[in-house]
Formats: sequence, C-alpha cells, structure tokens
Amino acid sequence: MKIGAKQTLLFIGDSITDCGRAQPFGVGNGLGNGYVNLVNALLTTRYPERRIRVVNTGSSGHTVRDLEARWKRDVIDLKPDWLSIMIGINDVWRQFDCPLETRHHVLPDQYEKTLKTLVGKTKVKGLVMMTPYYIEDNRSDDMRKRMDQYGAMVKKIARQQGAIFVDTQAAFDAVLKHLPSEMFAWDRVHPGLPGHTVLARAFLNGIGFEW
Amino acid sequence: MKIGAKQTLLFIGDSITDCGRAQPFGVGNGLGNGYVNLVNALLTTRYPERRIRVVNTGSSGHTVRDLEARWKRDVIDLKPDWLSIMIGINDVWRQFDCPLETRHHVLPDQYEKTLKTLVGKTKVKGLVMMTPYYIEDNRSDDMRKRMDQYGAMVKKIARQQGAIFVDTQAAFDAVLKHLPSEMFAWDRVHPGLPGHTVLARAFLNGIGFEW
Amino acid sequence: MKIGAKQTLLFIGDSITDCGRAQPFGVGNGLGNGYVNLVNALLTTRYPERRIRVVNTGSSGHTVRDLEARWKRDVIDLKPDWLSIMIGINDVWRQFDCPLETRHHVLPDQYEKTLKTLVGKTKVKGLVMMTPYYIEDNRSDDMRKRMDQYGAMVKKIARQQGAIFVDTQAAFDAVLKHLPSEMFAWDRVHPGLPGHTVLARAFLNGIGFEW
Amino acid sequence: MKIGAKQTLLFIGDSITDCGRAQPFGVGNGLGNGYVNLVNALLTTRYPERRIRVVNTGSSGHTVRDLEARWKRDVIDLKPDWLSIMIGINDVWRQFDCPLETRHHVLPDQYEKTLKTLVGKTKVKGLVMMTPYYIEDNRSDDMRKRMDQYGAMVKKIARQQGAIFVDTQAAFDAVLKHLPSEMFAWDRVHPGLPGHTVLARAFLNGIGFEW
Amino acid sequence: MKIGAKQTLLFIGDSITDCGRAQPFGVGNGLGNGYVNLVNALLTTRYPERRIRVVNTGSSGHTVRDLEARWKRDVIDLKPDWLSIMIGINDVWRQFDCPLETRHHVLPDQYEKTLKTLVGKTKVKGLVMMTPYYIEDNRSDDMRKRMDQYGAMVKKIARQQGAIFVDTQAAFDAVLKHLPSEMFAWDRVHPGLPGHTVLARAFLNGIGFEW
Amino acid sequence: MKIGAKQTLLFIGDSITDCGRAQPFGVGNGLGNGYVNLVNALLTTRYPERRIRVVNTGSSGHTVRDLEARWKRDVIDLKPDWLSIMIGINDVWRQFDCPLETRHHVLPDQYEKTLKTLVGKTKVKGLVMMTPYYIEDNRSDDMRKRMDQYGAMVKKIARQQGAIFVDTQAAFDAVLKHLPSEMFAWDRVHPGLPGHTVLARAFLNGIGFEW
Amino acid sequence: MKIGAKQTLLFIGDSITDCGRAQPFGVGNGLGNGYVNLVNALLTTRYPERRIRVVNTGSSGHTVRDLEARWKRDVIDLKPDWLSIMIGINDVWRQFDCPLETRHHVLPDQYEKTLKTLVGKTKVKGLVMMTPYYIEDNRSDDMRKRMDQYGAMVKKIARQQGAIFVDTQAAFDAVLKHLPSEMFAWDRVHPGLPGHTVLARAFLNGIGFEW
Amino acid sequence: MKIGAKQTLLFIGDSITDCGRAQPFGVGNGLGNGYVNLVNALLTTRYPERRIRVVNTGSSGHTVRDLEARWKRDVIDLKPDWLSIMIGINDVWRQFDCPLETRHHVLPDQYEKTLKTLVGKTKVKGLVMMTPYYIEDNRSDDMRKRMDQYGAMVKKIARQQGAIFVDTQAAFDAVLKHLPSEMFAWDRVHPGLPGHTVLARAFLNGIGFEW
Repeated sequence: MKIGAKQTLLFIGDSITDCGRAQPFGVGNGLGNGYVNLVNALLTTRYPERRIRVVNTGSSGHTVRDLEARWKRDVIDLKPDWLSIMIGINDVWRQFDCPLETRHHVLPDQYEKTLKTLVGKTKVKGLVMMTPYYIEDNRSDDMRKRMDQYGAMVKKIARQQGAIFVDTQAAFDAVLKHLPSEMFAWDRVHPGLPGHTVLARAFLNGIGFEW
Repeated sequence: MKIGAKQTLLFIGDSITDCGRAQPFGVGNGLGNGYVNLVNALLTTRYPERRIRVVNTGSSGHTVRDLEARWKRDVIDLKPDWLSIMIGINDVWRQFDCPLETRHHVLPDQYEKTLKTLVGKTKVKGLVMMTPYYIEDNRSDDMRKRMDQYGAMVKKIARQQGAIFVDTQAAFDAVLKHLPSEMFAWDRVHPGLPGHTVLARAFLNGIGFEW
Repeated sequence: MKIGAKQTLLFIGDSITDCGRAQPFGVGNGLGNGYVNLVNALLTTRYPERRIRVVNTGSSGHTVRDLEARWKRDVIDLKPDWLSIMIGINDVWRQFDCPLETRHHVLPDQYEKTLKTLVGKTKVKGLVMMTPYYIEDNRSDDMRKRMDQYGAMVKKIARQQGAIFVDTQAAFDAVLKHLPSEMFAWDRVHPGLPGHTVLARAFLNGIGFEW
Repeated sequence: MKIGAKQTLLFIGDSITDCGRAQPFGVGNGLGNGYVNLVNALLTTRYPERRIRVVNTGSSGHTVRDLEARWKRDVIDLKPDWLSIMIGINDVWRQFDCPLETRHHVLPDQYEKTLKTLVGKTKVKGLVMMTPYYIEDNRSDDMRKRMDQYGAMVKKIARQQGAIFVDTQAAFDAVLKHLPSEMFAWDRVHPGLPGHTVLARAFLNGIGFEW
Repeated sequence: MKIGAKQTLLFIGDSITDCGRAQPFGVGNGLGNGYVNLVNALLTTRYPERRIRVVNTGSSGHTVRDLEARWKRDVIDLKPDWLSIMIGINDVWRQFDCPLETRHHVLPDQYEKTLKTLVGKTKVKGLVMMTPYYIEDNRSDDMRKRMDQYGAMVKKIARQQGAIFVDTQAAFDAVLKHLPSEMFAWDRVHPGLPGHTVLARAFLNGIGFEW
Repeated sequence: MKIGAKQTLLFIGDSITDCGRAQPFGVGNGLGNGYVNLVNALLTTRYPERRIRVVNTGSSGHTVRDLEARWKRDVIDLKPDWLSIMIGINDVWRQFDCPLETRHHVLPDQYEKTLKTLVGKTKVKGLVMMTPYYIEDNRSDDMRKRMDQYGAMVKKIARQQGAIFVDTQAAFDAVLKHLPSEMFAWDRVHPGLPGHTVLARAFLNGIGFEW
Repeated sequence: MKIGAKQTLLFIGDSITDCGRAQPFGVGNGLGNGYVNLVNALLTTRYPERRIRVVNTGSSGHTVRDLEARWKRDVIDLKPDWLSIMIGINDVWRQFDCPLETRHHVLPDQYEKTLKTLVGKTKVKGLVMMTPYYIEDNRSDDMRKRMDQYGAMVKKIARQQGAIFVDTQAAFDAVLKHLPSEMFAWDRVHPGLPGHTVLARAFLNGIGFEW
Repeated sequence: MKIGAKQTLLFIGDSITDCGRAQPFGVGNGLGNGYVNLVNALLTTRYPERRIRVVNTGSSGHTVRDLEARWKRDVIDLKPDWLSIMIGINDVWRQFDCPLETRHHVLPDQYEKTLKTLVGKTKVKGLVMMTPYYIEDNRSDDMRKRMDQYGAMVKKIARQQGAIFVDTQAAFDAVLKHLPSEMFAWDRVHPGLPGHTVLARAFLNGIGFEW
C-alpha cells in the first residue's frame, strides 16, 4: 500500500465527499458518513501501525469553481502528503436540473482549465484523481453522456500529472451489470453505504490496499 | 366539461395522489398539495356554479394490493359520482429499488387482475383511469419499460370498462422533448408543481375542461 | 402568448406574491406556493420549448413604500424582460386592523405617486400591473371601498404606462357570485390554492395564455 | 350581582369559550385565555368574599349537535348552580367556509330544537343564554344575516326559559360604530383580548356586576 | 375618564408590565398578556370613540437602574401623552433571592433618587405612578416590609410631581383579606389573570374609568 | 450508621422526592436530581463497602391519598429493608392555591388516619418519617401554621411506630435564621440544590451518618 | 466465499448489531449504521451477482435472556439460510455498571446454557458465532477477564455445533497493539466506524470473503 | 473550616468543573450540576452565617493552555479570596483518543510550566490545587499512568506554592476498592452524582469542612 507511516491524506470534493463532516475540516470522528470515513476505517484497522491521518474538506453542492475559491485554505494550508480530488457532479447536474439558471453551470472548458490549474500548482507526495459519476447504466442518457465527458477530462489531466487515476464510473458500471441503479440511489447521485463502498474500494484499489 | 353540478369526484392512488391529504379522507383545504388540489382549484374557479366536491383518498407507498384492502372504506362507502384511479408506480418501483424484498413486488399478472376486479365491481357515473409513469425519456431503461407495460394494462382495462383513459406517461414525454427529466424530479417519480401540473392538465383534458 | 423564448419574468409584491419563496430571490423550486408558482408551472408545461425563467421577489407585509426601498436590488439588478407588480393590500389593511398605528398607513396620494415613479423609471419588454384585492363581495364594506380606490389608481397608471392591466378584484368577484368568500379565505386576504388559481388565471389571461 | 356565595358557574360553548382550557374541565388557572377567564378574574377580585367557582367546558369547533352529545358529562354531572351557554358560530360558519360538506352544517330547525331541548331539561339556579355573533357591521352580509337569525332563536328560547339574555352581537355592534372590525379579528370570529372583553362585559352586565 | 381622544398612554416597568410584549415596543396585539393588555382592552371597548393608543415598554428583570439606561429610547422618543411607571420589585427581590450578589441590589437611596430624576425630567400630560408590591399579607415579613418602604417612596415622589398615585399593594391587600396569597401567585410576584385584574382595576380607578 | 450491608432503602413521597426519577421506579442513575440522589451519593462514596441499594418511588403532585392507591406496587412489592416517607405538602398546599377545588384537599383527619394506616401495615427493618415543610420563617403565616400541624401529626405517628423522626421544617428554620427564604425557593416549596442538601443532611443525621 | 446466491443472512445481537436498524426487522437501507451494514455493503458490491439478502434483528441493551424471549419471531420465523449471533456484552456489563441491580445480571451458567440451547435448536445452512468483546488491552482488568470467560464459552459452543467461530476480541487486540483503546470507544464498548470495521473484517474473514 | 465570612471562592477547570454553569460566570443557581454546586450547597447549609460566595468559571474541553488564554478575565478580574483549580484531564486525554491530532496535545513540560506560571502570579488568601484523575483502578493502564504523572506535577507545584493539595485520584481509588469503575462513569471521566460527591468530599476535607 502506497501511503506511508504518519502521512496525511486529504480528500476534497462535493457532497459525496462531505457527507456531514466537521467544520472547519473533518478528522477522526468528524469525517462524515461517506466513502472518506470508510477509507479511513479500513486504513486504520488494516494498517494501524502506520497511523495515517485522514482529513476531509468536501463541501455539499460545490463545483470546481467553488474549490478554486477555497483551495488555499482547504488544501494548501493543511499541508497534505497525499491529496485526493473528486469533483464535477454538480458542475454537470445544474445543467440538467436547473437548465434556466446558467449562472450555476460550469461548462467543460472552464471545468478542465480550472481543475488542471489547481492540481498543477499543488505539490504533494501522492495525487489521486477520481472521476465524477452518474449511477445510470444507459450510456446514451444525456446526463450520463455529459458526465462521461467530464470523467474523460479527469483521466487526461491525471495522466498529464502522473496521478493515480480512479474511474468511479467504471466501478459503478461493474455492479450495475447485476443490480438495478434504483437500488443504489433514487436520484442516481447520493448513494447509501453500498454505493459509498463502491467508491471506497475503487480508491483503495488505486492505492494498492491489501485486504 | 363532463362532470355535472353537485357531483362528487373521488381520487384514489399512491403518494402522487396523497401529497399530505387530510385523514380519514381529504376535502376542501385537506386535499394535499398535488395534482388533486390543482384539479379542484381549477374546477372550483372555472366552474364555480357547479359546486363540484372533490375527495382524495390516495395513500403514500401503496400498490394496487393495498388499494384492494381498503376499497370499501375509501371508495365504495364514500359514494362518489366520479372515480379517478392512478396506481402502479410502487408496484413497479419496489422491483428495482428493493430487488431482494420480493414480498413487496406486485407482478404484472396480479396487478392487472386486481385492478380489473376493483374497477369492475364499482358503479359510478364516470370513471377515469390514469396510467402510472416514470419521468425518464429513455424508453429502453429497464424501469421505464416495466412501467410502460403496466400503463398498457391500464389502457386495456379502461377500454374494456368504457372509462376515460389518461396517458400520464405520454403527457410527461411531451415536455421531456424540450426539458430534462432532472428538472422535474431527481428521483424521476415525485415531482414539484410543474410535474403535478402535467398530471392535472392531462386529467382535465380527459374530462373536457375548457380554460 | 406574449412572453418569448428565454425571457425572464419577474414578480414583485407582498405576502400573496411571496408565499415562502427562497432568499435572496426565488427561482425553480423556490418560487413559494402561491400564484407565481402556478404561473411558472403552467408556462413550463404548456410552453416547455420557450424555457421562460420566472423570478419571485415578493415579501410578506410589504407596502409600496417597502418596494421603493428595495427596488434596485430586487427589480433593476435582476434585469427582467417582463415585470409583474401587485401591491397595495397592506397599504390599505393597516388602516383598518391597526387604525391607531398611523406610521404603518400608506395613504392614496403616497401610494399613487410612489407606484407611478417606480414603474415609470423601469425599462422592460413587458409590464403587467395587477390590482390589490379584498375577497369581500359587499362593495359598500369600508375596506372593500378603500381597496377599490387603490385598484382604480393601478388601472390609471397601467393605462399611462401602456402596461397590461389585470383586475384581480374583478376575477374574485366572478367566483363570489356563486361561492361564499369564507370558502376562499377566512381573513378575506390570504387564500388557499383556489384563490391563487383565480390570480394565476387572471394573470395568464392577461398575457394571452392558451390552455 | 346575582350570583351568590360559594356557587358554581359553568360555561359551555365552542372555541370562543374553550380558548385552551384544561381537560377534562377547566377551573382556576385552567380556564383558557378568553372571556371566561376574564369573567372569573373580575368576579374573584371584585367579590373575593363570595368565592364563586367558575368552570369551563367549551370545546373548539363544536356545534349545538356536539354539545348535545356531551351534555350529561360536561353539564349535568358537574352540577352547576349557574349555567352560561354560547353556541352557534360553527353551526353557521360551516355553511359558508365548507359549503360542499353538508354533513357539517347545522340548519336553523335542528339548531333551535336541540338548543331548546338541552336548556329545557337542565335545572339550575340561574341560566344565561348568549347569542352567537359575527364581527361584521354590514348587516346585509350573507353570513351576518344568517348569524342574526340564529341569535334571534337564542333570544326566543331565553324568553321562554326565563333566562338572562346576553346579546353579544349588539355588544360588538356598539364598538364597531367607532372602530373597524379588522381591528378585532381578521377572520371576524376569533378576537384578541379587546373582543373577549366585549363578551365579558356583556355577560357581566347581564348578571348585574358592579365595577 | 381622564385620558382624552387620540392620546398615547405608555407603560414602562418590569416583567409584570412586560408579559411577553412585542419588540422594540408593544402596541395592538403585541401588548403582552398582563395588566397593560387588560387596561387597553377595557379602554378600547368602553371608550371606542376616543381611539386611545396604548404602548408597552416593560422589560423582564429590570430595576429602576435599567430603566434609566433606556429612558430616552423607551419613553422620551416615543412621545407619550400619558406615562405610567411601575418599578421596584426586582430592586428589592434581588436583595433576598441573591443576597450575595450585591451588584444586583438597588438600595433605597439609589431607588428614590433615580426614580425622582426620571419622572422629574419627563414632560407629559398625565403621569401615573404605581407602587411595587409583594403578594404577602404578613406585613412583618422582611421582604414585604422592604417593599412597603419602596412603595412609600413612590407615594412621596408622586405627590411631589402631582402625579396620580396607584397603590397596588393596597389593592392586593383588599383581596387577601378573603383569599389566600398562594391562589394568586406561588412566588408572590408573578400572578395569573386575577392578579393582573387587581392591577388593571387599581390603575383604571386611578384615572377615573367608569364601567 | 444504621443501614447495614446489601440492604435496600426506599424513598416515597411527592415532587420533592420524585425530582424526575426513572419509571417504574428509580435506581442508580435514575434517582432524580433531589435529596434522594444526594443521600445515595453520600452513602455510596462514604460507605462503598456496604453496597446499599437506594430506590425512589416519589411522584409529583401526590398527597397521602395518592400514596395509598399505589402503596402495594410502589412500596410492598419492592420489599425494602428501610423505608423513608415524606408526604403532606400537596395535602396542605391545595387548600391554599386552589381553595375552591375542595375535592383536591386532604384535611388533617384524613391525612393522619391514612398515613398511620400505611406505615402501620408495613413491615421493614427501619422506618424513617420526614415531616412536610414550608420554607417560610413567619410561623404565623397561615400555610406555615397548617404545615406545622401536619408535621406534628408525623411526629406523633413516628413515636407510636418507633420510627426515626426527621424534622425537615426545623432543618430549614436553622438556615433561615441566617439567609432569606427567597434564596432557597421562590415558591417556598421546590428548592434548588442548597435546599435539597438541607433535606439530605437532616435525613443522614437521622440515620447516624458520619462524614 | 461461503454464502451462496440468493441466500438470506440474518444477524442477531445487542446494540452493536442493532445500531438503529428498522423495525420490525432491518433490510436494505434499514440495516443500521454498524458492522451489519458494512458486511452487507461489502457483500453487495463485491458479489453483486449473488444477490445475498441481509437481515438485522439486533436490539440495544439485550442479553442472551432477551434473545431467548424473541427467538421464534426474530430468527425462526424469518427463515434465514445463514445465522450470525453476537451476544454477551450486556450480560457482563450490568454486573459492573449496576452491581446492585442483580436482576439484570446474566451469570456464566445461565449464559452458556441459554446460548447453547438457542443455537442447538436452530437449523441453518451456516452458523457464525461471534464472541462478545471489551476494547481494553489490559487482560487483568476485571471486566475484560469476565468478558474473556464469556468469549471462551462461545468458542466451546461453536466447536460443538460445527459453527464458524469469529474471535472479535482477538481482532480488537490486534489493533490495540498499535493504537490506544480510547481512540475506538470512550466507553470501551460502542465504537465508531473503525471499530465496526474491525468487526466486519473479522466476520468476513470468517466466511472466506476475498477483497 | 478555613474559608471566612463573606469571602469569594472561585473554581476554574474543564468540563468536570463547568457542568453547564451560567455565562459569563456561574453564581447562585448558575453553578452547573457538578462538584462545585455540591460544595456550594454544603457550605451554604452548614455555614449559612458565613455567606460565602461561590463562583464557577470552568469550561468544557479546556486544557491548561486554554486557561492561560482566559486567566485575566476569568480569575484575576473576578477578584476571588480563594481559588481552586483542577485541570489536566483533556491535556492527557487528547493524547489517547485523538493520537494523530498532535495540535490538541498538551505535553508534560508545557503543562507544568503553564500551570506553575498561572498560580505563581495569582495572589489569593487561599489556593486549592486539585489533581486531574482517571476513574480506572489499573495503575499500569497507559492513560492512568500518564494522568498520575500530571497529578504528581500538581502535587509538586502545590507544595512550592504552599497551596492546599487535593488528591482526587486517591479519593477515587478509595471507592474503587469496593465498587467497579464502570458504576461511576462509562468513559472513566464524566461521573454522575456519586463521582462528583467524591470530588466535593475531597475538596471539603481539604479546607477543613466539619459535617
């Protein structure tokens, strides 16, 4: 497993990362009740001797534009050794659930440029880039297509940066072969524990976790 | 408009009909905040001289099997002149969001047989049969396909009974040509006022409402 | 129907317009539960291809004097294509329910002058002026007479401005011929859905809505 | 003042009498916050030596039909020396705010017959009959006319029974000559303290209270 | 009755005056539920043609020292025609329930001097000075003796100022001849409606109210 | 100290004993926050080796008549080794705060007879009888006099039964020599911790507690 | 992994198993937020094709004696293919936190006999027996010693029954070598997610889960 | 007993001292529900003639570092005659329950130096220094050992300052010989009333209290 002893691993993102974490940043019992908490619990109990410190600065409803505004306070100043970023769901979603409120839309160009700038200027020992996702197995659904487009940009930037790339959409697609999407999330975005376990396993496989 | 003066119009169904109506049955200010309330408001203000009485006995989470259990109390005993029924969403949904809890599934055979029996034994001046729906424009989506199958059964029974048939799925499909489904309901089932207006307009068009 | 594609329609007024709308202004699901929400729902589902954007800045308890104080922030800065204004109920009501608190009264001269100034300095593609109302069919009732006086001023200003004039009092009078006022609102001011439907229909008829 | 030492004075009626009284019957601090409480406070502090016991069994929403159903428990079994009854507002109101729900209407014939029977079979040292009222000074208003009709029946029965007759409508009319009805109650029925003081004064004048 | 048409009558004091009045000052329905509200209700319904405006600026827990700090805002700036002041209960009470917290005690010298200064510098058409009280009929009780001492200072200042003097303690003593103090207030200070009626009657008698 | 190892000590009484204890009876953390909890805490920490079990069955508002109704369930069936009873405050208080509700009064004869019967038929290793009290140092106060009368009956019965007699009134009188009663309880009945400490010390002194 | 397709796996136990599960039994989103939910999430996402159904009937505060009382309803009638049982923490804990309330203690003999009888009479395809635990690494701590004694009885019965034995105490001991117990649970019993992950991993390793 | 008449005794510390005290500092009924309240109640009722004033400025979660930051406002400015300080539990605990959040740890050197400086610069008539404690009787437990180390530093400083030294750990050890620690506090830190009584008795014995 790639994360070393006494290192700090910081997660940033939107509501999927947030999940009710503590303010101003989440540690220990304040990691929220999502995939970040699962990752921490599995690292703590599988590698207790490494004493890895997990920090959560996800915020509900945020887009990459919101991350940019708080990047210094919520990433740089916290001096993580490892950084994991998963952003983009709201960037896409607002284009579909509020099509008339264009001020809330983050279009592909702005998304790619902003994300690239943020990770480009951040020096860490390890970088993990997770795609946004939509728990919908019909790949020709309009919003799924759009989300795949944003996922592809994440993949491209991850390669350019030499980051670990985590394809969360592919991880969901694997279980959707056998189980209906309605079982994971009525709104196709905010899952219960099974969906967060899909995310945690995808992340942990990315960093070489051994059960 | 087909409903005459001083007649009672009763709506039965699931959460889409219920919408927080009063107990034991909803009238006046207790019609809930869904399409039933809209229909009542439009009938009252467009045809005030007819003094039509609207009654709501929808119940959240119900399937056609639940309607059968309370049919006497919630339909027969209330002696409606007109009856409108919209049921089937939960009958289908449970097959997708709780695939392992088969005791909650109402399969097509049972659905058709139960619905047919209920409307067959009920004598009213006018009967309106509304299809269940799924606010998803991809017709090859598994749950949409299933819902269309149940809608077809409603259509068949409506014809056999000489009832007014209201195709709510077609009404939603019309607006989904121009606007994304996410705008109407994150879970594709429980809409805000625009979606309930789609339902109210479809119903009112069925009974010959003139603006 | 007069409002064109992609145009913004802004409503300003008092509690009848407000109805619990979102802050700092209401759009989408935050339009409150009154006539504004009904207008939006009917425009969205009848003319989905036009993608008209509805905005609500009504505020409970406000008089035309309060509107003046927030006109820049709540009308001008939001750059509406169409503007609808309905104000005056509180201007009159305070003269009757708090006759001793004269600081809360807006008398006819101030009402007319302020309203005229506000609409005069506002450039929009379309202007709709709705009268205040009192759901009381006795035209010699003191408060009804006073309200009619304010309605007449609205009519006069609408003509001067070339605005669409919506006579909400006349719309209520039409249904009060057949149904008692107590059925619409115990306080004769704040109605349930039927009364808001009266308002929505009056507005929509004014802008040429076709069912 | 007509009520003697150590006598019990019982009030029965609807929400105007109830005003949040204690269950199963109100005494002492549990008299509610309406005219009954005012009458008790004025009797207690003006005639402390008489130690008059006031009991309240008013119930919100009740008509004379509801009083009949609980007459034994809430009047007879409590053995009052004096009985005051004010009923009829809901009997009339339901005919106007819920015109379609005829099961809730108590029409004049049933009202008169039931009220007459109840007071006829009840033996007390003193009987006070208060009219229902509507805080509306337009005597040709439909609901006011109806209420006056019920008030006239109370007057007629009071005479037949030799009871003290309290004309609450006349008491309100006196203040409405100088002050608008909106100041007393937005719904013209449930007043604040000034309106309850009108009722208390009318009652106390009826029994010969001296300030 | 001494208060003339269209005059404003302002009450200031402690929790007995406050009783939950509205902020920043109480009028109309916001007068709280104590003796001020009773006085207003009786004036309004007995002399409706005078349209007397009652204002309440009592504040719970306040002593004369607290009144001094807010005198300009809560008396002078509101420009009353008539002023009624009842203060001193907390000035005394803190000496008994918090004997060790001397910073909360207002001793006789400071009380008399402050009260005299406040009323001396305030020009009104009519001034009413009400004594503080303790609902305890044992005149040798320590706190009762102390309260009587403060009451005597009020009487002295009232004479010097030519004010109407209202002896609330005497009013309570009259009813305590016949009824136990525990019936009026468990803590001998905060009464229910009967005790507030004692206060209201004492005030009204002071200004020449005729029933 | 008289209570031996592994014995059960049960307290019964009114709100002073109850203090929010657990249902159906209080033990451990469920002893309420009054003198019973203090006695338990001091016994536990001073004599930890004795493992004395304290049980609380006090109930707010109860009189000796209420104790009689639940004596079997709340005393006999719980098989205490030691029993402590403090009752009578409500028996007296209702005669003063609700003088007109005679059905709630427990007069001296009934009090003495009932209390005597209850303790007479109960076999325990040790019996403690505590007087009711009134935190009022004026011994000629009507309610204090009445309470002393009840206390004297407790003393008489305690002697006849050979019980330990605890004079709580005397214990309060001792501190009232130096501190005002208002400091202990505004209503002279329900004290804060200092007053409960007076009760706990009086009880513990009765059973020979050594600090 | 030993659990086959479409099989039902039922967990019974105390608060550690319960964790807020739905009533009358937990499935899907109603599994609570403890190790049962984690096991379900990992099985669902790792083996989605097996569609294993997880059921939770844990109840807070229960001992093996409570399980016996509801065994038919909560195990037998639900017809599980696999059964997992973890009980004993409260059986031991009550001996320490409520040493005087012996009616709540379940001593070793009764524990062993009851547990053996329950699993002996239950026919399932697979049985998992988990030990109770105490998150305390000092093995000479009184409560830890007692808990180890109960764990040894579980081990013995598991062997006799041919059940899968899961040593949760050993699993906690492994992480306590590197991290302090206070980090997992202040009360050494109710852990956060890391502690529940220790339990879930121990269970999953027992049934042959492959990451 | 060492504290003289009319002196002020101030307690500062963490949550054990705080226990819900009033803001900005606790006196009278605002002392919280812990050992400070007990000490006050026992001093008040045993030595009522001394009128000792007790003040509480404990704050939950605080370490000696937090005390330093508020020392002027919460000790010096309140001018106590006697000062009691109990701090250190959180200084130690954070090292165990949040081992990765080193910013929250107060290590021995900083603890000793800060505590010594604070008490060194504070002039009072009497100083009481209470040790922190851990309700765990296994002296080789890691956190107990650490707490004993901090207790020893308190003892050393108390001697240097000539302060009264109160060994709370020894006081708990005495009762733990006979009763299990789980009975006092599940988390071994926050006790119920019995544990606070241990603290109060230790403090009172330190200042020479005589029962």
